[in-house]
Amino acid sequence: MTNELETLAPDMIAAVEAEMRQVLHANGRQPDLFYGMMQYHMGWLDAQLQPVNEKSGKRIRPLLCLLTCAAAGGNWQQAVPAAAAIEMLHNFSLIHDDIEDASPTRRGRATLWQLWGIPQAINAGDAMFAIAHLALNRLTERGVAAEIVVQALRRFDETCVQLTQGQHADMAFEQRSQVSVEDYLQMITGKTAVLLALSAELGARIAQASEATINHYAQYGLHLGLAFQVIDDILGIWGDEARTGKSAATDIITKKKTLPVLHGLAHSAPLQQLYATAKPDDAFVAQAIALLDQSGSHAFARTKADTYSISASHHLETAVATGPAALALQQLTQMLLNRDY
Amino acid sequence: MTNELETLAPDMIAAVEAEMRQVLHANGRQPDLFYGMMQYHMGWLDAQLQPVNEKSGKRIRPLLCLLTCAAAGGNWQQAVPAAAAIEMLHNFSLIHDDIEDASPTRRGRATLWQLWGIPQAINAGDAMFAIAHLALNRLTERGVAAEIVVQALRRFDETCVQLTQGQHADMAFEQRSQVSVEDYLQMITGKTAVLLALSAELGARIAQASEATINHYAQYGLHLGLAFQVIDDILGIWGDEARTGKSAATDIITKKKTLPVLHGLAHSAPLQQLYATAKPDDAFVAQAIALLDQSGSHAFARTKADTYSISASHHLETAVATGPAALALQQLTQMLLNRDY
Repeated sequence: MTNELETLAPDMIAAVEAEMRQVLHANGRQPDLFYGMMQYHMGWLDAQLQPVNEKSGKRIRPLLCLLTCAAAGGNWQQAVPAAAAIEMLHNFSLIHDDIEDASPTRRGRATLWQLWGIPQAINAGDAMFAIAHLALNRLTERGVAAEIVVQALRRFDETCVQLTQGQHADMAFEQRSQVSVEDYLQMITGKTAVLLALSAELGARIAQASEATINHYAQYGLHLGLAFQVIDDILGIWGDEARTGKSAATDIITKKKTLPVLHGLAHSAPLQQLYATAKPDDAFVAQAIALLDQSGSHAFARTKADTYSISASHHLETAVATGPAALALQQLTQMLLNRDY
Repeated sequence: MTNELETLAPDMIAAVEAEMRQVLHANGRQPDLFYGMMQYHMGWLDAQLQPVNEKSGKRIRPLLCLLTCAAAGGNWQQAVPAAAAIEMLHNFSLIHDDIEDASPTRRGRATLWQLWGIPQAINAGDAMFAIAHLALNRLTERGVAAEIVVQALRRFDETCVQLTQGQHADMAFEQRSQVSVEDYLQMITGKTAVLLALSAELGARIAQASEATINHYAQYGLHLGLAFQVIDDILGIWGDEARTGKSAATDIITKKKTLPVLHGLAHSAPLQQLYATAKPDDAFVAQAIALLDQSGSHAFARTKADTYSISASHHLETAVATGPAALALQQLTQMLLNRDY
């Protein structure tokens, strides 16, 4: 059986990488520190600005954008600048998030602020943000009509505002004792789902699909993102260490307020008391998980994940995607969502 | 004698303020903290998010944009979104600069990071950056053709990249023992002059001037910015306290490496030694100024400022600006450059 995703993905990812390297001045010569910092972040250089091939991100977003463009009847090559812009927007936000969360490492490597200090890292993120816009502007050079480019840029920046709103809420939650399930879902919508929604939307927009179809693709991306995040939340508590690669119950040990925990805190007074007073040792982890199971929080989160997954598939069907790219989108969806939760 | 600048400026500034208030959701109701932080930075709210009327910036850049649009034969009302976008871009960069320079106050008020912490302040700057783009996108709603909007957005982001390059260089200079006059001029070009160049350029572009005319306006803005910065550098050393509002010789006391100092360091071994060893007391200040005068650094900086000023006026003349806005531009230039240096 052919796997359409495995057939289509390599060329698409290679095209996006080439586009990103071009706008980030990665032309084989050693860059100055200004571009060097950004190229280091992308995994193309080491801390001495020498070429390496580090593990980069999974490039899910650009793939989603290009597959959607093809599935909606467009020429995916035209959408490459949009796919590159979205991946760079994602990476800009990681540079700033790492400063904001004081994360010393990402993908096993030192973060920018660790290597070059907070001031230069803030500035490198700003530069990446501006260059992401320039990447999107290059749609013009692939023959996309100016009206569509203006609209794509507007949607891009509206999404940026939502991303910063999500990040604002996430940081504010750390200071708050009470966070509702509703608040949390709104936060992950901004922090995660809207960028997947934009990826699919821009692909469909560049394919010149109808507004109704564009909306179905956007909703598909949104619910895909929500399902993915909720599954991540479940695996962060009940995940099998061998499968997830993370130690089991990580999110319990760090007392992270993910969806199941927020549901549990709202429905279980003993869990509330446990979180308020107990030290996060082995006994705490066992007790917390038992209470979460009792309060139905595991089942609640599973139902949410299922609902979002079904909604994603429903919107993808309604969009009437066609050809091998449509099958590849279904396979991508399966890959992201069919984890053992 | 009528002063065209005084006649035209109030309406233009009011239109830009109204546009900025709209995109920043300042509609009279108390905003949430996300928009509240940005509105505080703009001087519209106090730290408790209550309305105030604080001293805002001088809005030189939006004024330059709108006057240029009118002088180039355009309808300045059409350019209001561009003027608002540029002012917000400037303010975004101030929010991040204040973090990067660890400045506790700006215009006599606590900076965002002082009030709400570095993580939220970085994020508020990012939000302002995205919203500045959305402001520019609103040119479409004023009937500006999509092709011009795409081009304006590209020039906007190219300028953002130059701004971050200027800021990168400025921060890097603090770590370097040797900075040449050439390096310095390139740095202030990025940090200051390109944004004035963009202001004039977008005004002319929206007026649909020819590319040659647009270029003259851009060069006018660029040289205006360079002249302004060099005059600031001169006044930071030899300025009259009563006129500048800053204490005399501030830049000597802080050992700031401005143009005259860099020229002096390159031409006077005694000054080099003084900067490397002496404590910045009164004797140091007197001696440093004497050495700068001896090495011709005051004269050098004055000549630079004059050259840039003349070049700015030359480009403004060559652009053949017309009507009251042209006179107002000349008056604005006079106001910015005819300081007693």
